[in-house]
Amino acid sequence: MTETAPRPTLEAVAERAGVSRATVSRVVNGAHGVREALAERVRRAVEELGYVPNQAARSLVTKRHDAVAVVAAEPESRVFADPFFAQQLRGISKELTAHDNQLVLLLTEGREDHARVGRYLAGGHVDGALVFSLHLDDPLPGLVRRAGVPTVFGGRPGWDDGRDGVVYVDSDNRGGARAAVRHLTGLGRTRIAHITGPLDQTSAADRLAGFRDLRADAGPGLIERGDFTSGGGERAMRELLDRCPGLDAVFAANDLTAAGALRVLRERGRRVPDDVAVVGFDDMLPVAEQTDPPLTTIRQDIEEMGRLMARLLLRGLDRRASGDETSAIAAPAPSGVVLPTTLVRRASA
Amino acid sequence: MTETAPRPTLEAVAERAGVSRATVSRVVNGAHGVREALAERVRRAVEELGYVPNQAARSLVTKRHDAVAVVAAEPESRVFADPFFAQQLRGISKELTAHDNQLVLLLTEGREDHARVGRYLAGGHVDGALVFSLHLDDPLPGLVRRAGVPTVFGGRPGWDDGRDGVVYVDSDNRGGARAAVRHLTGLGRTRIAHITGPLDQTSAADRLAGFRDLRADAGPGLIERGDFTSGGGERAMRELLDRCPGLDAVFAANDLTAAGALRVLRERGRRVPDDVAVVGFDDMLPVAEQTDPPLTTIRQDIEEMGRLMARLLLRGLDRRASGDETSAIAAPAPSGVVLPTTLVRRASA
Repeated sequence: MTETAPRPTLEAVAERAGVSRATVSRVVNGAHGVREALAERVRRAVEELGYVPNQAARSLVTKRHDAVAVVAAEPESRVFADPFFAQQLRGISKELTAHDNQLVLLLTEGREDHARVGRYLAGGHVDGALVFSLHLDDPLPGLVRRAGVPTVFGGRPGWDDGRDGVVYVDSDNRGGARAAVRHLTGLGRTRIAHITGPLDQTSAADRLAGFRDLRADAGPGLIERGDFTSGGGERAMRELLDRCPGLDAVFAANDLTAAGALRVLRERGRRVPDDVAVVGFDDMLPVAEQTDPPLTTIRQDIEEMGRLMARLLLRGLDRRASGDETSAIAAPAPSGVVLPTTLVRRASA
Repeated sequence: MTETAPRPTLEAVAERAGVSRATVSRVVNGAHGVREALAERVRRAVEELGYVPNQAARSLVTKRHDAVAVVAAEPESRVFADPFFAQQLRGISKELTAHDNQLVLLLTEGREDHARVGRYLAGGHVDGALVFSLHLDDPLPGLVRRAGVPTVFGGRPGWDDGRDGVVYVDSDNRGGARAAVRHLTGLGRTRIAHITGPLDQTSAADRLAGFRDLRADAGPGLIERGDFTSGGGERAMRELLDRCPGLDAVFAANDLTAAGALRVLRERGRRVPDDVAVVGFDDMLPVAEQTDPPLTTIRQDIEEMGRLMARLLLRGLDRRASGDETSAIAAPAPSGVVLPTTLVRRASA
């Protein structure tokens, strides 16, 4: 551990260099008009003492830390295993970096740590937060709200209960699901099944709603619950084939689910797409390209979602700093930015 | 104001009350859903132990934020793609969480962002930092030092220039390399080649040194530079076979490198281990188990390295809070904790 005497002050640097405080201040702030010999002495003293210009003083003027927290309502191990989150984070990181803001990722082991995250957010260490809160019964949004920091959510929150000022970025899950079904009916398919995601997540619930919009007559026999994993897709596909051996198409709630469904269809001797056409959701690479056959799917721009979350938050903070209270982050009702989805056609449908 | 007795932890309260950490956390944070009898037991344990759940009250006593930064000297995209880093982070996360400290991961797009990381560290938002600084010419260690926060490094820093108080956690890279070579000579191999890692990283330099300790007579023809990737391993293996067709063993600087070397050996018709025995380094799963044949390798306990880094930092902070200046944080010279490595024997050697 590198120790540290108390942090050196501007005064200490001035004393070491034998110059005035004002001179030190001019040099460390990059101002002109200091003789080179003097400036050199100051720089040497800064170097020798390890002086760091005072962030707190700067913050007094700007009231900003130039730091934004990212919080995921999932344990650290799942955050790091999830390519979806990594892509959103990529977009966030690029956008924050472009505006010289520090990305502060707050990791946890589980829900029992969320109170601590709330305390950190409330502690004045960041200007705002980007929160991924996927589950309906999640305590995190409440904790973030009590922390009082401007926040943008990733994904439509499940608690559309009229509370103030909720801003989120989402994909058009419902519209994307409708596009998947339209594509399958356009191929002449009539017995179309759906494998859902975990329905305590709005993305899964919205995709199911989109499926139902166009298949209101689909009996419960054609809908089977999955969990966004390939194992869940395998299990659900077996159920569906046992129940409805004559099905001729499957819309899977995400690409991993579709990959599992494809394995079971092959195992049961069904040709894809001839006997059964399959459409996924996400266009998660390399998964969607490496299935056999390659997967037709609904693409969402995951990185762009992250970028947009960061952009909305920074804009809101800028407006607030300039005294404009009619900003996005003080919206009177839940307000979402919903990105379009597109059908990517490969071989499976 | 300094604290002399160790502060009671959430764990101590949980143990006293005979409940889980999660239950204590819910009670002290005023959440619902805990049976009243249980809640009462928790409150009594809190009272008896004098547990202080309130962050602000705690900060007054300890001057602590109960937050630790983790900084990697790599861009966000590489951090998230690197299973090695994910494993270290897992150990760090578990250890910090067990002590109710928040893990604050500071991500960047590249070196030009390191000054901003230095500002955040200097801004009083964390109690200390865990820094992964892998490259010899990295400006990050200097920035961290000037930020004035107690720091533990992951991996032996390359700048062993006598500066004070540097503490690091590393694996025994040199000893592990010697164990690999000893295993190969024990199998009767005499023409042993080495594919190195990028030699601006101390882990790669130390493994090369270990190889040379026992193969001082190995001509330069038997040493080829790689870069810790499988593509680098392929390229280096081709070079070695062209130069020394009679080689009978390869020690690869990590498992990915070994995986690339194995592909080239098969492509050139060499049987492993009959014609050429191969040993890797890391025991990175699933890579080491999925090569053909499965890889004999030198295992390092990556998660434990992370756990130990966090533990050393927290202990140093505790000692400092209790006024003990003879702690690791005032070590007079670079001091490392070096974890042992072990040979894991599979089929390749």
